[in-house]
Amino acid sequence: MSSIFGYSPQVAVSADEKKSFLAFAEQTAKEAGLEALPFFRSQMNIENKRTDGGFDPVTAADHAVEKKVREAIARVYPDHGICGEEFGYQEGNGLTWVIDPIDGTRAFMTGMLHWGLLLALFDGQEPILGVMYQPYVGELFSGNGEQAWFSRGDERRRLRTSDCRSLEDSVLCTTGLEWFPTDERAQFERLQAQAKLTRIGGDCYVHALVAMGSVDLATDATLNAYDLQALIPIVRGAGGVVTTYDGGSAAMGGTVLCSANEFLHAAALQELHSV
Amino acid sequence: MSSIFGYSPQVAVSADEKKSFLAFAEQTAKEAGLEALPFFRSQMNIENKRTDGGFDPVTAADHAVEKKVREAIARVYPDHGICGEEFGYQEGNGLTWVIDPIDGTRAFMTGMLHWGLLLALFDGQEPILGVMYQPYVGELFSGNGEQAWFSRGDERRRLRTSDCRSLEDSVLCTTGLEWFPTDERAQFERLQAQAKLTRIGGDCYVHALVAMGSVDLATDATLNAYDLQALIPIVRGAGGVVTTYDGGSAAMGGTVLCSANEFLHAAALQELHSV
Repeated sequence: MSSIFGYSPQVAVSADEKKSFLAFAEQTAKEAGLEALPFFRSQMNIENKRTDGGFDPVTAADHAVEKKVREAIARVYPDHGICGEEFGYQEGNGLTWVIDPIDGTRAFMTGMLHWGLLLALFDGQEPILGVMYQPYVGELFSGNGEQAWFSRGDERRRLRTSDCRSLEDSVLCTTGLEWFPTDERAQFERLQAQAKLTRIGGDCYVHALVAMGSVDLATDATLNAYDLQALIPIVRGAGGVVTTYDGGSAAMGGTVLCSANEFLHAAALQELHSV
Repeated sequence: MSSIFGYSPQVAVSADEKKSFLAFAEQTAKEAGLEALPFFRSQMNIENKRTDGGFDPVTAADHAVEKKVREAIARVYPDHGICGEEFGYQEGNGLTWVIDPIDGTRAFMTGMLHWGLLLALFDGQEPILGVMYQPYVGELFSGNGEQAWFSRGDERRRLRTSDCRSLEDSVLCTTGLEWFPTDERAQFERLQAQAKLTRIGGDCYVHALVAMGSVDLATDATLNAYDLQALIPIVRGAGGVVTTYDGGSAAMGGTVLCSANEFLHAAALQELHSV
């Protein structure tokens, strides 16, 4: 019994179970995400002082959100495992909920909008469903690897990636160059040199927008499992492809590439390894 | 009578007039901003194709928003001038409405959230009031140089900048390094070396968040007048300072620095010119 979260024998999940798990994940994300809001732009609430020293609103928000998610899982699926950024790994029956309570903490901290709660269910080999929720903007991205959806208020619709197949026409996004180790930064720059437009910044949004079809390629370096797992079934469900730079599973994070379709992914991987 | 927008003799505006103008600007921004929404993430609406070739949704959105603002001005203040990014300068009685229908077009194009409509009123020497509206998120920043407000839904509250006075404690933001000419990029990098944290990306949001107090310093290079004018009375109204790198008026844009307070601004200007 490992106490470190990682790959384990795959647990079979029926289509009905998966549907219930996804509904639970969506509902839980929407409820728990709200816990972050009292801490968002909180200097507006506290007499013109940005807190320093004793109280860190980002950490407080992270803790409040993850605690709420863990409570819901313990209540509804007490035999499932949990791996969260803030409170660590608790092994279960082989199915593990993977939580990043606030992906994009620096954006959150500075009052920017590109952050969100990430929640995935991992079957030992792959995340089989995932949700991303931005509670301030009220938008939810969700997917099960076969389909993906965008929901906001009463609106709910399918997500589909773009049909961009060439690097020359592609819009490329990454959260920040400072996250790339030297070798991978050189690889990224080769990709950037080919793309039509590169946008820096966005955290979970860069991948969600590949699912939405408004970005064609997203790449981030040195990710943890909880930074990415939720986004994989969303991007795949919308028609996209997610792997590490060497084409392997991105379930444990690392330096990953997310593409609108298999053609673009193949072209991008080739460019990454073109030297 | 110049046909190029620029400085001209200052027009006196009474406190009552200014109040009416600001109410008009807020209402107009909220109405006109909605015109952008059908084009936002519009690949979701058009059968999985990102438009290429004939139709550019960003240009269409820009045109639709600016047209709506111009119509409102012509209806309510037919003697005022107008300077807009899309449809140019039309001289008036010395008071000029300055419009950027969508600041942050690349963010808009890629489905990101940091963009907004900017609307300022220029008295010949300074923008005397300004609003920034993000219609998708529904948030409005407004200011008259003496006070500034944040509004969303039923919420309305005063904006106040942070009381951060040292570069070492400051959060610095800029839209993108690629906009800086070589000399000014070197200056920016000196500032970055002193700041606690630097965030890249955000367009109008980087300045609005100085007004909100969650960012301490914002700087952007090679701005046009319409990129910045609306933000100046907001930042100043919240307690901040906005000038060019040489400490002069930023009303016509250029490479500008926006600080939470006069102490931080002085320290930042000194660092910019420290070689």
